[in-house]
Amino acid sequence: MKTTILINCPDQPGIICTVTGFIHSHGGNVIYLDQHVDKQADIFFMRVESDFEASTFSIASFKKEFENDLALPYKMKWSFNTDDMIPKMALFVSKYNHCLYDLLSRYKSGELKVEIPFIISNHSDLKDIADQFDIPFYHIPVTKETKAIAEDKQLILLKENQIDFIVLARYMQIVSSKIIDQYTNRIINIHHSFLPAFAGAKPYHAAFKRGVKIIGATSHYVTEALDAGPIIEQDVTTVSHSHAIKDFIAKGRDLEKIVLSRAVKLHIQRKTMVYNNKTVIFS
Amino acid sequence: MKTTILINCPDQPGIICTVTGFIHSHGGNVIYLDQHVDKQADIFFMRVESDFEASTFSIASFKKEFENDLALPYKMKWSFNTDDMIPKMALFVSKYNHCLYDLLSRYKSGELKVEIPFIISNHSDLKDIADQFDIPFYHIPVTKETKAIAEDKQLILLKENQIDFIVLARYMQIVSSKIIDQYTNRIINIHHSFLPAFAGAKPYHAAFKRGVKIIGATSHYVTEALDAGPIIEQDVTTVSHSHAIKDFIAKGRDLEKIVLSRAVKLHIQRKTMVYNNKTVIFS
Amino acid sequence: MKTTILINCPDQPGIICTVTGFIHSHGGNVIYLDQHVDKQADIFFMRVESDFEASTFSIASFKKEFENDLALPYKMKWSFNTDDMIPKMALFVSKYNHCLYDLLSRYKSGELKVEIPFIISNHSDLKDIADQFDIPFYHIPVTKETKAIAEDKQLILLKENQIDFIVLARYMQIVSSKIIDQYTNRIINIHHSFLPAFAGAKPYHAAFKRGVKIIGATSHYVTEALDAGPIIEQDVTTVSHSHAIKDFIAKGRDLEKIVLSRAVKLHIQRKTMVYNNKTVIFS
Amino acid sequence: MKTTILINCPDQPGIICTVTGFIHSHGGNVIYLDQHVDKQADIFFMRVESDFEASTFSIASFKKEFENDLALPYKMKWSFNTDDMIPKMALFVSKYNHCLYDLLSRYKSGELKVEIPFIISNHSDLKDIADQFDIPFYHIPVTKETKAIAEDKQLILLKENQIDFIVLARYMQIVSSKIIDQYTNRIINIHHSFLPAFAGAKPYHAAFKRGVKIIGATSHYVTEALDAGPIIEQDVTTVSHSHAIKDFIAKGRDLEKIVLSRAVKLHIQRKTMVYNNKTVIFS
Repeated sequence: MKTTILINCPDQPGIICTVTGFIHSHGGNVIYLDQHVDKQADIFFMRVESDFEASTFSIASFKKEFENDLALPYKMKWSFNTDDMIPKMALFVSKYNHCLYDLLSRYKSGELKVEIPFIISNHSDLKDIADQFDIPFYHIPVTKETKAIAEDKQLILLKENQIDFIVLARYMQIVSSKIIDQYTNRIINIHHSFLPAFAGAKPYHAAFKRGVKIIGATSHYVTEALDAGPIIEQDVTTVSHSHAIKDFIAKGRDLEKIVLSRAVKLHIQRKTMVYNNKTVIFS
Repeated sequence: MKTTILINCPDQPGIICTVTGFIHSHGGNVIYLDQHVDKQADIFFMRVESDFEASTFSIASFKKEFENDLALPYKMKWSFNTDDMIPKMALFVSKYNHCLYDLLSRYKSGELKVEIPFIISNHSDLKDIADQFDIPFYHIPVTKETKAIAEDKQLILLKENQIDFIVLARYMQIVSSKIIDQYTNRIINIHHSFLPAFAGAKPYHAAFKRGVKIIGATSHYVTEALDAGPIIEQDVTTVSHSHAIKDFIAKGRDLEKIVLSRAVKLHIQRKTMVYNNKTVIFS
Repeated sequence: MKTTILINCPDQPGIICTVTGFIHSHGGNVIYLDQHVDKQADIFFMRVESDFEASTFSIASFKKEFENDLALPYKMKWSFNTDDMIPKMALFVSKYNHCLYDLLSRYKSGELKVEIPFIISNHSDLKDIADQFDIPFYHIPVTKETKAIAEDKQLILLKENQIDFIVLARYMQIVSSKIIDQYTNRIINIHHSFLPAFAGAKPYHAAFKRGVKIIGATSHYVTEALDAGPIIEQDVTTVSHSHAIKDFIAKGRDLEKIVLSRAVKLHIQRKTMVYNNKTVIFS
Repeated sequence: MKTTILINCPDQPGIICTVTGFIHSHGGNVIYLDQHVDKQADIFFMRVESDFEASTFSIASFKKEFENDLALPYKMKWSFNTDDMIPKMALFVSKYNHCLYDLLSRYKSGELKVEIPFIISNHSDLKDIADQFDIPFYHIPVTKETKAIAEDKQLILLKENQIDFIVLARYMQIVSSKIIDQYTNRIINIHHSFLPAFAGAKPYHAAFKRGVKIIGATSHYVTEALDAGPIIEQDVTTVSHSHAIKDFIAKGRDLEKIVLSRAVKLHIQRKTMVYNNKTVIFS
């Protein structure tokens, strides 16, 4: 049984040796280990993939002993997952379809190992695509007045479907703390600029006006501060004076969908760990 | 005789035909033409390389007729240069040597077709390198109190040496309007971030704190607004959680020197044209 | 009426002036012009976008006069297109779906201005996707023995549907000269390597074995020499020792679909011109 | 005392735990660990940075026990270095100066922690630069007839100066097995193409002829097969139809110097490990 353990804790000598020793003593074999120390913050991070003999391995007792023998004395924040747990991903979209198509085609071809119980949108434009892929589509309009009620409806759907994480695939609405608080570091957004440049609305227009020679896209976990959450993935492409705003937008679409998909994949593979509003991205 | 003409003017039909016809009727042959229309601002831009028979060509009368027959009726801003005019470039440096070494080694191997009458620095650290390359070095310290006097000394050197343009090769001082006004769009700076992100001091520290996954460097013409002038060239490189600030700085050095050298080369080749705080970069 | 003229001919002085003058004298306004001279081959290339007043403009007489007054004396190869001609694109696929999904989602959202009369495949795996997008799907199996017959069937479909150009979206079969000869420089392939490195079968396996640190994808026009036709577009991404062949393949998929879509878009916009087994890509 | 241990051995469970335990039991603290398993070849690789208390640590006895307790039973190939060992680097050059300038300016500013006992060249063109940086310069001409004698002279200089590794900074000569055999995986070359494309002479000319849209540079360890040794680092830049061969060469120079310097830095930091004609590049 393949498993992934994520750890962070105050740095001290001997952690790697202790953790790998613990895994071996419980019948596991370390397949891959990636480790990092943030020397400014003095925090140790580690991701360990291990293989256990399924017939004899008890997840419950392993987790209990890990908590007592390692997590408590080392003050670890940690998680344990087996590879056969398939996370449930909710998609929030608005009118743009490129990120949605990209995620759904990866999902359908088995590249993204998730379940997608539903798609939520504040507009009905993309219902056809949901139908194309046989995924339930909920049209929940959002206005200034109905926002609180709309988010209540969203929360009910999220809870009923036991959603593990949310992807805002160009959702174009600000998600309030009511939802963020319940899905901390589990809401992934794609912003169509090279953050922190051009946060907020209409970044391509702002980039055009500034005359930049490179544009970008940024995928990040959503926090209450707009476009200021921990960055998961970024990429860029060149532009020139010969590109109009519509060319920025067209080139940006290709960036957005690739960057968002990479971030979603990293999240699914449990390769991200957040601290101090930054991410460690394990290899 | 190879020549380069740069033009911008309000857009209207027939400019390309008229200008190329004018060149032909004066015995010139168009070698390369690059043209652009900014449709928002309704401005036409063009760069034309032409070849004239040196024995019969009169620069003075060509320029006079161009002004009367084309520039006045079409309201053109324009410049005319022959390829044998070698511009005079002043270098301003401080303590970092990577951009200086890069520019000087390109200069010495003939890649940059300029004269370098002198190097100015507010510190004496890099005098050795100036000596290595046999270039006069003026140490002009700058403090809050002496800044005005220092800039007067700089201006005298600039004037005496008939400097055409200035390169701030990590000069680390803010140049005041006294100098900028006399060298509009002729002072090239390198800023060690992907502008407009992280303008101002210590951009690598700010990028590290924000947890970005890509860092950049930007070369731009200096205006009075700090790090906000027209961008000539940008480039980026990837970073990760595993890089400390010193790694950002080391990776950034390679970006800075390449980006600055590219911008300097574009300026020397008269491939840049500034308008609305943006640049057209001709091919 | 917006039009695009593509020209190449032996280089000589005055072509730009003559062609733009001709356009103006026929009531056209040059919107954008991009020009290039291959100095080794001494060939002049130009792409001109012009606008004509539709009510008074006669395409037939313009083309006739262009042929007589310009093309014949200057020995031009040229083409003339109006922007309202929508080309017909045939898609050939096999079992991989990422390029197909990417092209179809761009088509459906209006990004690719083409008609897609049908999809041909030697396998039936991707019929579902054709159905999702309501595009006729022809399953034409290909074996060594049936190849000639299969290509005859393909040719009938191509002719009946007046196909303008063919896109091999990971078709995985070698197209014979019977088809290539009738669609010279009109068949676009995507090869999953940075050509000319790793031409032929299994390029990701070969790249892995060689231990390269960067992999690529190349879109090119199909010629009889395998993977050796004129290159339209290339892009690359970094890999490391930590990536297995399956990681190369997964990273490569994202390259392939983006590179192929860019090449298709350039072809549709008539921005490509082939000579000496190379392409000029106009801006 | 900071130390770096490099290991490779047949893969088996428990190696990380055993090695880190061994380091701890000898008073060391693991600072950073990077590990990799090549699953095709079933080989385990690891690089461990550790810190030992200098006053009590005996290198000799540590190495002896490591050999007996770990290396022998696990069949390890391994090396042990302390950070205060400064390697001796010989530079071989020919007529091009860009890589030489880049390496020497990094060396002079302390970025490359090496000694450079001498520069060897088959031409005298670059003697001035050696003089600029106060480094002994040996002009050893090489012709077909004198090659064997020239290499003997080179070997004497290499031995007398206890050279650890050699950098061919655009040396333009093929180094024979007489030297390669004595510096296995310790001769670093820069090839001016994206290997394996365009191996051998005049790669920019070949790239231009093929009409590629991207060119590259590759740094690799030298083996007897020309341009076919284990790749350390690669990078690329875009080109277009508008670039002549001289533009390829100019753009390539910037790639070559950056790629070579990165490879040299990785080697100095002991972050490279060669096997099966490939490299593991540790982070």
